[in-house]
Amino acid sequence: MATQVIVLNGGSSSGKTGVARCLKAILPQPWIHFGIDDLLEALPPSLMGQGSGIEFGAQGEVEVGEGFRQIESAWLTGLAAMARAGARVIIDDVFLSGGESQERLRPHLEGLDVLWVGVRCDPEIVVGREIARGDRMIGMAALQAEVVHAGVTYDVEVDTSHTESLECARAIAKHVV
Amino acid sequence: MATQVIVLNGGSSSGKTGVARCLKAILPQPWIHFGIDDLLEALPPSLMGQGSGIEFGAQGEVEVGEGFRQIESAWLTGLAAMARAGARVIIDDVFLSGGESQERLRPHLEGLDVLWVGVRCDPEIVVGREIARGDRMIGMAALQAEVVHAGVTYDVEVDTSHTESLECARAIAKHVV
Amino acid sequence: MATQVIVLNGGSSSGKTGVARCLKAILPQPWIHFGIDDLLEALPPSLMGQGSGIEFGAQGEVEVGEGFRQIESAWLTGLAAMARAGARVIIDDVFLSGGESQERLRPHLEGLDVLWVGVRCDPEIVVGREIARGDRMIGMAALQAEVVHAGVTYDVEVDTSHTESLECARAIAKHVV
Amino acid sequence: MATQVIVLNGGSSSGKTGVARCLKAILPQPWIHFGIDDLLEALPPSLMGQGSGIEFGAQGEVEVGEGFRQIESAWLTGLAAMARAGARVIIDDVFLSGGESQERLRPHLEGLDVLWVGVRCDPEIVVGREIARGDRMIGMAALQAEVVHAGVTYDVEVDTSHTESLECARAIAKHVV
Repeated sequence: MATQVIVLNGGSSSGKTGVARCLKAILPQPWIHFGIDDLLEALPPSLMGQGSGIEFGAQGEVEVGEGFRQIESAWLTGLAAMARAGARVIIDDVFLSGGESQERLRPHLEGLDVLWVGVRCDPEIVVGREIARGDRMIGMAALQAEVVHAGVTYDVEVDTSHTESLECARAIAKHVV
Repeated sequence: MATQVIVLNGGSSSGKTGVARCLKAILPQPWIHFGIDDLLEALPPSLMGQGSGIEFGAQGEVEVGEGFRQIESAWLTGLAAMARAGARVIIDDVFLSGGESQERLRPHLEGLDVLWVGVRCDPEIVVGREIARGDRMIGMAALQAEVVHAGVTYDVEVDTSHTESLECARAIAKHVV
Repeated sequence: MATQVIVLNGGSSSGKTGVARCLKAILPQPWIHFGIDDLLEALPPSLMGQGSGIEFGAQGEVEVGEGFRQIESAWLTGLAAMARAGARVIIDDVFLSGGESQERLRPHLEGLDVLWVGVRCDPEIVVGREIARGDRMIGMAALQAEVVHAGVTYDVEVDTSHTESLECARAIAKHVV
Repeated sequence: MATQVIVLNGGSSSGKTGVARCLKAILPQPWIHFGIDDLLEALPPSLMGQGSGIEFGAQGEVEVGEGFRQIESAWLTGLAAMARAGARVIIDDVFLSGGESQERLRPHLEGLDVLWVGVRCDPEIVVGREIARGDRMIGMAALQAEVVHAGVTYDVEVDTSHTESLECARAIAKHVV
């Protein structure tokens, strides 16, 4: 059965988006790409910040409330529906709770052919990339680098520490059927 | 029955996104907002440009191919699924074919309580706003200003020519139940 | 003598940048445009935040330290030097201290033919535009709307409350010689 | 004498901006950073495209006319004036004509203590990074990768092919006095 969804999981600044763009460029079929950052853009002000929404602390920590969880769940249902309707979908996500996040995502993708991909990057390296990007809260990359992979099961893993995004995308593409 | 989807239709630079942001800020319930620009961002390079994708001409004209249509259809299916899963969804769109575009969108939203909103702006005014924005192809706003409304049926219409986005949002909000 | 510098002063979200883009589009000679936001982009992290740099409070208030002032002064010296070297320069600025800020800027522009322009917007209107933009700290526009004009002397004033950016630019262009 | 200007020269997508951001983060004194992209942002529409302005071809080639050259020269004069006024300035540039571009820049920086830095990246690698960025015209990186360094004299050279931006910045920082 043909791959319908590619899930890229990795911490902030690990290079997921670059890998996703390369995947879109090299895969023979058209794939569309959505990420958790797109959901953040779509949120109303009432769900950004303290309370039931998503909150970003000064040291890069992320707190997620019930209101955010509900909307995130509906959003994932929608991405899965796109895939069921025939679009090939790359989802880039940050599994803040590692394996638990994966288990929360799994039922949404029920019946779809999913390729689970871990995008790793050495904590020491990712910290420098966060500085070089200049648009992220400093501290988030280091906090997330390893915890997002704890207890997660993958079909493929890539490591952007010493491998370019395009090379990582080529390694992933071999598993896309 | 409570409104589940708000569709904002208007030409380029008519002010849809500003109205959508104000709606998210003033509506008592959390709403999320996606637009056709988000789909463009998500596309692979193979669907940008000539052929089966979406192509932007030098005078602001837009050509849409079969490959783009298929993915757009799956995307709309996904947005509708988000609404059915309980998220309140604002969709901002440009009905390039007016009423025909609306008829193409309608079946995707089957069974949902939809508020159809026209966002108008005088062609002479929208041309100046396109210049002031500085990030759009000059010509698109004028080409789209009226044609996108031809044959479309609305529940509410607002006109940003002489009314601020926030005021337009307040007028729309009265129809959200 | 031909106008060499256009200074646009106005509070956050008053529409300075849109007016500047329209000026560049309609003036017969080529003008380049720099704003205080460009300086903020250029700053090192050590000058963003508490201490000697520039700090943005949660209610939209702005605090400016000695380190920022020194770099801002050198930056203005540089913009004036561009104008003396023959470039026509539009500077968009926020006179946080009103007339005092103007007096601080004046010696930098010594000997240049400067057009001083006030860009006003009603406080009630600017608050809505800040929400519609979605990328500014809510509160800044209201705080700055009037105070930035206190004690400032202008050659022209425009008001974006009920006049489009392009119309404002046309009114300013009449004073550019 | 203390370093007053750091010139980073490298082709599109070679990593200059990331290196500049890391330099700002690690250097003990405050440095400000401007690049040729900032000048492009500042230009009027009349200097973008064919004629006397700057034009970007479909294969990534760049053509520069007399009108652009004049404004670029005034801009460089201004950046040098910022440095003379006490700001430490990082300039990131693309020497389209290699050594000839350097000779054109040199008189602007007369009397200033300048550190000339080459930022290299293997052509095969830079092509992949251009795809991963997703916001650059494909082809420009490959065209510029080597030609921009031809005939240029440097104080330090870094290569981002296998060295992170932060490491490159550390190597450069050792030469900043």
